[in-house]
Amino acid sequence: MAPVSEVGEEMHALVERLYPLCRSITGDGVRATLEIVGEYVPLEVHEVPTGTRVLDWTVPQEWNIRDAYVADASGRRVVDFRASSLHVLGYSVPVSATMPLAELRPHLHTLPDRPAWVPYRTSYYQPQWGFCLAQETLDALPDGEYEVRIDSTLADGHLTYAEHVVPGRVPDEVIVSCHVCHPSLANDNLAGIAVAVFLARALAERQPHYTYRFVFAPGTIGAITWLARNRERVERVRHGLVLACAGDPGDLTYKQSRRGDAEIDRVLRHVLAVSGRPHRITEFTPYGYDERQYCSPGFDLGVGSLSRTPYAGYPEYHTSADNPDFVSPRAMADTLAVCREAFAVLDRNRRYVNLSPYGEPQLGRRGLYDSLGGRSDAKQAQMAMLWVLSLSDGEHSLLDVAERSGLPFDTVAAAADALHGAGLLKT
Amino acid sequence: MAPVSEVGEEMHALVERLYPLCRSITGDGVRATLEIVGEYVPLEVHEVPTGTRVLDWTVPQEWNIRDAYVADASGRRVVDFRASSLHVLGYSVPVSATMPLAELRPHLHTLPDRPAWVPYRTSYYQPQWGFCLAQETLDALPDGEYEVRIDSTLADGHLTYAEHVVPGRVPDEVIVSCHVCHPSLANDNLAGIAVAVFLARALAERQPHYTYRFVFAPGTIGAITWLARNRERVERVRHGLVLACAGDPGDLTYKQSRRGDAEIDRVLRHVLAVSGRPHRITEFTPYGYDERQYCSPGFDLGVGSLSRTPYAGYPEYHTSADNPDFVSPRAMADTLAVCREAFAVLDRNRRYVNLSPYGEPQLGRRGLYDSLGGRSDAKQAQMAMLWVLSLSDGEHSLLDVAERSGLPFDTVAAAADALHGAGLLKT
Amino acid sequence: MAPVSEVGEEMHALVERLYPLCRSITGDGVRATLEIVGEYVPLEVHEVPTGTRVLDWTVPQEWNIRDAYVADASGRRVVDFRASSLHVLGYSVPVSATMPLAELRPHLHTLPDRPAWVPYRTSYYQPQWGFCLAQETLDALPDGEYEVRIDSTLADGHLTYAEHVVPGRVPDEVIVSCHVCHPSLANDNLAGIAVAVFLARALAERQPHYTYRFVFAPGTIGAITWLARNRERVERVRHGLVLACAGDPGDLTYKQSRRGDAEIDRVLRHVLAVSGRPHRITEFTPYGYDERQYCSPGFDLGVGSLSRTPYAGYPEYHTSADNPDFVSPRAMADTLAVCREAFAVLDRNRRYVNLSPYGEPQLGRRGLYDSLGGRSDAKQAQMAMLWVLSLSDGEHSLLDVAERSGLPFDTVAAAADALHGAGLLKT
Repeated sequence: MAPVSEVGEEMHALVERLYPLCRSITGDGVRATLEIVGEYVPLEVHEVPTGTRVLDWTVPQEWNIRDAYVADASGRRVVDFRASSLHVLGYSVPVSATMPLAELRPHLHTLPDRPAWVPYRTSYYQPQWGFCLAQETLDALPDGEYEVRIDSTLADGHLTYAEHVVPGRVPDEVIVSCHVCHPSLANDNLAGIAVAVFLARALAERQPHYTYRFVFAPGTIGAITWLARNRERVERVRHGLVLACAGDPGDLTYKQSRRGDAEIDRVLRHVLAVSGRPHRITEFTPYGYDERQYCSPGFDLGVGSLSRTPYAGYPEYHTSADNPDFVSPRAMADTLAVCREAFAVLDRNRRYVNLSPYGEPQLGRRGLYDSLGGRSDAKQAQMAMLWVLSLSDGEHSLLDVAERSGLPFDTVAAAADALHGAGLLKT
Repeated sequence: MAPVSEVGEEMHALVERLYPLCRSITGDGVRATLEIVGEYVPLEVHEVPTGTRVLDWTVPQEWNIRDAYVADASGRRVVDFRASSLHVLGYSVPVSATMPLAELRPHLHTLPDRPAWVPYRTSYYQPQWGFCLAQETLDALPDGEYEVRIDSTLADGHLTYAEHVVPGRVPDEVIVSCHVCHPSLANDNLAGIAVAVFLARALAERQPHYTYRFVFAPGTIGAITWLARNRERVERVRHGLVLACAGDPGDLTYKQSRRGDAEIDRVLRHVLAVSGRPHRITEFTPYGYDERQYCSPGFDLGVGSLSRTPYAGYPEYHTSADNPDFVSPRAMADTLAVCREAFAVLDRNRRYVNLSPYGEPQLGRRGLYDSLGGRSDAKQAQMAMLWVLSLSDGEHSLLDVAERSGLPFDTVAAAADALHGAGLLKT
Repeated sequence: MAPVSEVGEEMHALVERLYPLCRSITGDGVRATLEIVGEYVPLEVHEVPTGTRVLDWTVPQEWNIRDAYVADASGRRVVDFRASSLHVLGYSVPVSATMPLAELRPHLHTLPDRPAWVPYRTSYYQPQWGFCLAQETLDALPDGEYEVRIDSTLADGHLTYAEHVVPGRVPDEVIVSCHVCHPSLANDNLAGIAVAVFLARALAERQPHYTYRFVFAPGTIGAITWLARNRERVERVRHGLVLACAGDPGDLTYKQSRRGDAEIDRVLRHVLAVSGRPHRITEFTPYGYDERQYCSPGFDLGVGSLSRTPYAGYPEYHTSADNPDFVSPRAMADTLAVCREAFAVLDRNRRYVNLSPYGEPQLGRRGLYDSLGGRSDAKQAQMAMLWVLSLSDGEHSLLDVAERSGLPFDTVAAAADALHGAGLLKT
């Protein structure tokens, strides 16, 4: 794995490549995005036809757009899709008309409080058309006639999503999910995509215990489609993490699963706490990203969400200010590092059973214990062995041991390996 | 319902009418009290004969009193029952004698620390006679002979209690209980009686979900009698509230049921917390008012007790200073308002089951969701729907949803109604 | 029982008698110790042959020592076992040689940070020999040849431990265990032995409810041997306490059992809290004294450990500074007092069932209740009765009642006795 600073730069470069594409919940923007991601890690791309029933939903028509603009009487484009994919209301139906500003105005979305920024707006399930622009651009428009054109198509097609799998030693799965449906927004969620890609590469360096499945799918409808098409696989999903807003300058935030005490919740709380990083742990709420779907009460998976500043928690959220300058190599590298630390714990966390539970087993004759008694400086490794033996009753995991003993998880896991090797533990 | 200030005045007027009557655990004072209450809400009055076994107890003889006094040698009444019903020891046996002050003294009860106040004393289960008077009255009595007369009867008769029922849509019951056995004491418990009466009237304005049963009964023996005669009905009692000391100037105090986590406990804690009122929540203790009986371990009902300053917590308690001036229209109106708020929550609180629990149901196509995506200001009503869907797994009540989401209970309940109407929830 | 000050002196005298003996995990030092203890309380002494399998361990060879020294060229003993049993590495194999200081040095153990103190070291399970001495003694040794002699034997023999039983009214047992394997160390554990001895004598003054078994055994291997030979008796062990470091000037420390909520844990927490003594309650750790064995997950007994300053928590620990001056009559008397208070609670703690659970039973007609009503100063004893009745549902112990009511345990237990006597409770 590249050093942290280098991997940060690589992730940022990926964000910059993906930034200009006009993504939505369907269409060629998603396909182009997945094609670039596929250059980093192999992807299995799925195309699901319009009209397919997915849980309570139906895959919508596919939306594609070639051009869109508002031009003034002189023909000058005062709002231009070619400058930014944000300028068009997502899923706009086609329009080609000339109208006075007064008639156009209800179709124009701005942020009066942030007059220089362009908002991000969509209308997936109600046929509308519209443009997003800076308030100061709007303020500068003189009355008069404007040419309005959106060259989009909304037609039967497909919803596109992709998977990448890092095979583990067991078929039980950990899913890492990130949404790929937002257009030119860097933190939301190109940074998440980039962290996911480099996390996958890191996990593949050494075969992990779990099988890790990375899901790159449009928000909401994409996760719902994946869940609908993987009802049996869901039985094997043990843990999961949604990555979103992974690159802004804020502190890390872990949003717990609906269960609140799922193993992934405990692992992230532990790793963030012992890391010494300032961070926030928040309760589950049924709003946010695709943890909403994974944690819906019928599935109720142990899936949390890792962000830096969570959605809607920063002024740049869903605006043109969420651009590649807003995310940094350092922040993305930090998010990636915590993911790696967390999965290193998750992957080794087990519940063992002490096979010699009546009294302490004699560690000395197995070469596991310092032979010179009477000293008070029993080494950490030996303390870890005693703790693992004491708590390995099938009820406590190694993470429980680490938290109760105050010893580092790695030390505890190493002690468990030694005891397992000596035949004193079974899983 | 009358505005708060008006209903406060009406309650205070009822307290003033009831104040002069000499109530005890049996006798005509209770009957006269219930007759006046019956002018406000229809009552079913029960008469239970002396000697009836009620749980571990036996209905005692009925006590009635016509007159009582201590007169000095000149014939002047120095202690006079006609001035206040408190002057006679409750359940005094008849006496007619002349005796020196020294002999009389053991029968005279005063409050040396509050020399101007007359205490309230009774002796229900041991035949005694006595008078209660101000210490300063006693101090002014010269030695000499006194005529002592208590014109009471203690004879087979009945114990009297009454019920008023506000019928609901289900036979499950909420009981509201208040004791009617104390003589001329305003806060203890004429204020409680008055709040109960106007609460019953308020609940009847719109048919409630639960059937609300108001029990007006003498303390201890009355509640025990009611429980003894309603063993089957008790199976249907879901919640209950004892009202006592409901009109003094102190903050509200909710004493939790013996269970501590009964639904009534959670409702009162919630309503008082969100109301912003200063208040106290106290643990159950087996001393106090009739929650002692309802919460005895064999019944263990979810019955709490609402007071302002709890029993024995104010100097005026069980003295002549607990008179109608001590209770205010404003305080009683405030107690009533909290009861109404609490029962409004209790009455709508349900556990629902999400019928579309796999992923979020598509609210948009059901007209339940704002159609314009990409906005961060999702409305409270929509958040409430997501919360209700997320937590409606049969384990969480709407109150759980309100507390976990931080949303107002009303908003949550309205969301549940909308989702239920759309076929997405069942009870 | 002698007054506290006198019993403190008696315990200290016992410590001084035992101090010079060279104890180890086997051998005549333990036998001599138990012989002296047997002068105070009758003991059943057990001898378990070398080679006996005990749980995962094997009883080792017996070690005995007659003399040991390092002598300089002039024949002067510069390190002399006769001065202190600490001077020889415990379980040293015999040696008789002359060697230069450089060759001797790896066999010499000192405390560089405490140059005047002699450390305590052992090597039970690896054949070694060695001496322990003050750093300043070592520093003063000139180079040259030294005569080295350890006149010890390590041969098949026995492991010795002893029991003393205070018979109770039920066969369920409470074990009190203390290690007897440390040589000339006063706090660790002669003070513990002394407290155990006088605790046993105090318990025998009045027949207790439980049967109290005192185990005097070498650390680790002794407790393991006892457990191995008492597998059926262990089923009857309800509670237990390990006594160690019972006489130093620090505050009391109670280390909870592995369960953390065993009855002994609750009792010690309660007794220490209400005593007003400054004290510490610590979580279980799998390091320390023989609670390690009693609490190993296969047994998981409710055994805690009472110390003043816990092992390794004071500089004198495992050094020659842990001598009889380090422990005081006052501190030992205080430890003994807390043990007595705790066992007084443990011995009376029961779960009762209220036989009249529907409503309050009428205490008055049973002579259990103040007959004059209307008074707010209900006596503590009466409150205790109401609390016991309220919580006696088979789920709550008298200690639960005491903690929930805030009433003294003694008052609660007396109330339970009165109610039991009146036929209102059963166990």
